[in-house]
Parts: sequence; C-alpha cells; structure tokens
Amino acid sequence: MRVDPRRVMERVQDIARSGSAFYERFVARQEGVLRVHERARFRGGRLVVGDHELDGVPVVLATGARPAQSPLPGRDDVPFLTSDSLMHLDELPRSLAIVGAGPIGVEFAQALARLDVEVSLVYRRVMPLAEDELDASQCVAHALERDGVRLFPSSAGIRLARGRGGGVRVEWDGGGVQADHVLLATGREPSVQDLDPASAGLELDRGGLAVDEQLRTTVPGVWAIGDAVGGHHLHYQYTHVATFEGPLAAENALRGTTHRPDYNAMPRVTFTDPEVAAVGLTELQARARGYDVLCHRKPMRQLGKAKAMGEQDGFVKVVLDRKTGKLLGGSIVAYHAGDLLPALTTPLHIRGGDLDALLATTFPHPTMSEGVKVAVRDAWRQLAEGG
Amino acid sequence: MRVDPRRVMERVQDIARSGSAFYERFVARQEGVLRVHERARFRGGRLVVGDHELDGVPVVLATGARPAQSPLPGRDDVPFLTSDSLMHLDELPRSLAIVGAGPIGVEFAQALARLDVEVSLVYRRVMPLAEDELDASQCVAHALERDGVRLFPSSAGIRLARGRGGGVRVEWDGGGVQADHVLLATGREPSVQDLDPASAGLELDRGGLAVDEQLRTTVPGVWAIGDAVGGHHLHYQYTHVATFEGPLAAENALRGTTHRPDYNAMPRVTFTDPEVAAVGLTELQARARGYDVLCHRKPMRQLGKAKAMGEQDGFVKVVLDRKTGKLLGGSIVAYHAGDLLPALTTPLHIRGGDLDALLATTFPHPTMSEGVKVAVRDAWRQLAEGG
Repeated sequence: MRVDPRRVMERVQDIARSGSAFYERFVARQEGVLRVHERARFRGGRLVVGDHELDGVPVVLATGARPAQSPLPGRDDVPFLTSDSLMHLDELPRSLAIVGAGPIGVEFAQALARLDVEVSLVYRRVMPLAEDELDASQCVAHALERDGVRLFPSSAGIRLARGRGGGVRVEWDGGGVQADHVLLATGREPSVQDLDPASAGLELDRGGLAVDEQLRTTVPGVWAIGDAVGGHHLHYQYTHVATFEGPLAAENALRGTTHRPDYNAMPRVTFTDPEVAAVGLTELQARARGYDVLCHRKPMRQLGKAKAMGEQDGFVKVVLDRKTGKLLGGSIVAYHAGDLLPALTTPLHIRGGDLDALLATTFPHPTMSEGVKVAVRDAWRQLAEGG
Repeated sequence: MRVDPRRVMERVQDIARSGSAFYERFVARQEGVLRVHERARFRGGRLVVGDHELDGVPVVLATGARPAQSPLPGRDDVPFLTSDSLMHLDELPRSLAIVGAGPIGVEFAQALARLDVEVSLVYRRVMPLAEDELDASQCVAHALERDGVRLFPSSAGIRLARGRGGGVRVEWDGGGVQADHVLLATGREPSVQDLDPASAGLELDRGGLAVDEQLRTTVPGVWAIGDAVGGHHLHYQYTHVATFEGPLAAENALRGTTHRPDYNAMPRVTFTDPEVAAVGLTELQARARGYDVLCHRKPMRQLGKAKAMGEQDGFVKVVLDRKTGKLLGGSIVAYHAGDLLPALTTPLHIRGGDLDALLATTFPHPTMSEGVKVAVRDAWRQLAEGG
C-alpha cells in the first residue's frame, strides 16, 4: 500500500500503540499475573520494584536494548535522532543524514527516501549490511541508490558538527554532508545500567548481562533474555529471539528445567525492499570455519511469480558442506524474503542441515517460495554430479 | 504493482511468451534432446510423431488439459471465452459474466474486476471455492464483493443465450445477467483425444489417462503425468504436480525405478488477493474420514506485519488429529499465502504430520509467516491442555 507522506508518522505511531495495547490486554487476561508499572533496580542483592522488594521470587530480566552510546566526535555538540526518537517525530524531516549502514540504517534510509526525504547514508564499511553475503549487500546498495539514497561508503573518521545556517553536518576524512537532522544508527546496546547490576553481583559481558547456556545470570534465581543479554548474544538482537527465549527461561526459572536455547538456526531479516533474510553461515563464515563449501545461487527473476509480480530483484543462495551434502546456511534476497526463510530454517534447526525433507516437498507454483526449492535442488544436483 | 488496464493484455501475453521462451531455451541446452514440433498420435499401437514412428522408445505423455466441454445449454448458440482464449484477447471487455466459481473462476473474476471490468460470477454451489475450508470461501466471497464482483450463488439450471442487442446472456432459474462476453470456468479436462488413445489400448479413467501408482498407463512402455492423467488425479491439476511427477516418471521409464508419487501433501493455491493456500485435509474432510479433530484458527490481523503492511485479511487454520497430535491439514488465507505454505507442507509430507520440527523452528518477526507458527503452537497448547 502507498501511504501519504504527511500521515505516515501518525500511522507508524498508531501501529506501535496498537501493538503495545494488544500485549497489554494479553498479559492482563492471564491468570495469576500481577503487573507493576514501576522502575526496577537491584539494591543490596534484591530486586526492588517501586515499593515492592522481591525476595525468593525467581526473576527473568528482559530490559531490552537502547541506541548505542557510540563515542562519535561532536556528538555532544549537536542534536541527533536515534531509531527510537525518530519514531516519535510528528513530521518527516526534509533531509536526513544517517550514520551507520547496518540493518537499522538501511531500513530507515530506504523507507524515508521513499517518503521523499533526501537521505545520505554515511558508513565506515565498504558495503552496507557488511555481515551479510556480499551479493546481498550489493543488491541492497543498488536498491538504495535506485530509491535516491546517496551512499558514502568507506568513510573514516566520521564526526558530527553544527550545520552552516542550521541543521547538522556529518563529516569524514575527505568529505561531508549537511542535513536537517542526523540519525545515529550505530547499533543498540543492552539496557541494563538502570538496574544497577553491580550491586546485585550481576556480571556483564560486552555491556550486556552475562548468562550461561540455560540463560542463568551470575546471580542465583535470576535469568535474562533478549536484547538485555551480552556476549555472543549481541548478534541476536531480534524480537523473535526474545520471544523464543522467554518461555524457555520462564520454565527453567519456575519448573527447574534446563532448556538450552539453540542459536544455530536463528533467522536474521532486514526489512528493506527487497528484504534480506538469512540463517546459518554465510559463504565467508563457512570458509573461515574450514568447510569445503558448495554455493548455489538462484536469481528470482527466473521465477514466473517474480515476473508476474514485477518483483524480480534478488536471489536465493545456499551454502552446502561438500563432505556431507548438508545445509550450512542460506540467504534470500527477495520481495518478502522473511516469509520464505522458514523453509530453510527448519532443516537447519532440526536435522543439522539434512535436506531430504525439503527436497521431497513440493513447493506451490507460481510462488516466490519456489526459488528456495530450486536453489537447494540445483545445489544438490551439482554436488551429486561432483560439480 | 499497478498495471495500466489498457496495457494489461499485452503484459500478460509478454510474460507467458517469455516463460515459454525460457523453457524452450532450457530444453535446447540439454544434451541428447531431439525436439520434434509435430502433432503426435497413436496408430496401430505405436506413437507417431509427424513422420517419425517411435517404436521401442519409452514414452511419457504430458499433453495437459483444456477447458472442459461442459454440456451447458445454449453453449452452441453463442460465442464464449475460456481461460485459454481470454488470455489472447487484445483488449479487456467492458463487462464479463463468468460461469463457475472454482479457482479459475474466482481468479479471473477478481483480476478483471480490479481492471475495471464489470464482472458477474454465476455458480451452482452455495459458496465460491466450495472444496476449500468454509471460512476460506467466505473470505474470498467477501474480497470479491469488495472488488465489485456481483455474486450469483446457488444458481440452478445455468444456460447461455444471445443478449438483447448484442452480447451474451447467462440465465438461471429465476434470474439472468447480460454481458459483452461470457467466460466458461467450469473446469479443465485431460487433453488426450487427439492422441487416439483407444487405438493404442490406452485406457481412460474419468476422461483422462488411467495410470497405476508408478504413473504407468495400461500400455507397456508408456507413462503419463500432469493434467493428462485421469481418475483421482483430476484433483491435482497444478503445474507443480506435473513438475513433481515428470522426473519420477522419466526415471521409472529410463532406469527401471519404481518411484510412486505421494499426493498427501500436494499444495493447492488459488491466486486471489488474499491467496488461498491449502495442504492435506480440510476440517470437513478430516471429520468425514472419522478423525477426532482439533482445529485452530489464527487471524492474520493479529500479526504486526499484517498491520504494518495494511494486509490484514485472512487467517491460518490447522486441523490436528486429537489422538496423535499430528497435522492432518492446513489452510492459509493471506497476502501471499502460497509463499507461507511450505512451512505446513514439509511436516505433512515427510513425517506424516509430526509437528516437532515446526514447533522448534523460530519464525522471523515481523513476517506473515509467523501466523503459521502461532497457529500450530496454539493448537498444540490447546491439545496439551485437553481443550
């Protein structure tokens, strides 16, 4: 659907509010739930919520993340937006400079460019989405340029300064842009300091709560999930990860189970158009781990549905272990790639990458999902032929 | 994408042509393939293709289907369109009456209504898509009405007649409509008569070629696949079924294998907006077979992605066997439901409906695919709680 740019912020806020309200009602309906809307912190080893001191009650911390407090020079001298505060603007800016081309940076860059905001995207790395497959990054860079986003890759020494005659300047070694506003999209960090974790003996790992394989923090009786967790978990700042961990931690806390979440098949999606969806290892990651890999790439433009829809961007790329024929990872760049990903996630998650189930399943024609089946089938055929 | 109504037939024909050309090139690239563009028929038990008489060569028949020659009264007196001939029109009609509300009827009804054709849909059954879940039919009926299609359900004694002052009339007991053209969407039937199957001893079953479980016809050395096949296969008139059977029949023919295609998890998709995608048994079918069923229905409008996209129509409905907890079937009515179906097809196909894999897989948020996961999870929970 096409949204009127003048009404878009109102719509964004409406949708966010209705989502919150839905979960408020959901929680309120559950029996045995006491909701306390108060600030929580540890004091003398105990969790204090408003006037309530919780003692002997199992605790699951899920305090989430906030925009990273990156040490960008000039940051204290100019007003800037974060992915949180931008959502609360009443009107779109005329021009916006974005620092950082990870998922948040590219999502906002494209969305706002399509709403006729003049967008400049400034980033340190050579490509946007630098953790993804190189061909996925290229596809997204191309899509951003087509939508009118000005890209400034490989920018060293990024700093902020007051704009000439108002606004903000983003400068780097050898260049600079001016805009009405600047959005810092330099990552999000666990939001745990307000808890005063040190007073409880809660150890941190790379800025977030340290947990063991069962999501236990270093304090007995206290578990943690979602974006509040540190360490390698910082790669999994997704709502669906928290949703997945929540019930496991709660069961571990209340029933003494020892569930250990498995992150090998955690989906990663960036909501640009086309979307970038991935699971498991990229080609580079698999090579770095010493696998002898076979990669196969199916362009979406070969699919009947892609032609009929006029949505021909992207591809499905699968990474197989030549030795075992198993799936190591896959990336889908396509219109609604996130919806196509479960077909790759299930074999990776359950059977260690065994592809028999996928190969035996008939995918409906004409759909975009056929790309997944064909990519896997052709990779498998190539492997069987010793290719 | 939005297509200019004046250019749409040109676009449709371009896409169809480019699809054919793609497969022409694909076949031409294969080693050892001789293409003969001639009419084929059996004569004295042997297949004759143009001047070539094929003897001792294994044959796979894939002659497809054509619009059904239904015995509609008045059919010989007026010109009518079929789903084939409509695709070759140079211009859209101003008004169109469609007889039949199966997949073909409803797809054309909606597509043409959205291109500003005045569409009347006349059908015998109470609901469109009468083989699907009742709530899927209701959802599609509602979508058609919203798009301006006039529905004439439960119409008995449907017949054609010349229109007053040109055009065509579709009449039924107690009513009638007039339109520029009429589209007969009363099914497709195997296209086998031109082969002269009787002369070869090829038996028929409900108008199509009779085959055994290995796709062998009644003549040794002759196999058949796709829409040319009769019997229960008439329920599987889908491109992806032929694509699935082709390699199995070819291997059986050339290598002496005994592959038996399994139709239990064959996807069925109707490409309306929202799409209707289904696999396995509907609630009614499962009850008719004596299963004690648990059904669960997750409305799409509860999903964050559906809200954000403004695509809130539809639902995911799963049918479980209470005794075993296994999946018997599922229907998805949603924007791009066909792309979401493989998540339900894989467990049904491979493990007889075992849902462990699906339940353990994390679906990415926010996507439409979450609806599948949540429907299955909630159904399973309800079952566990004895609900």
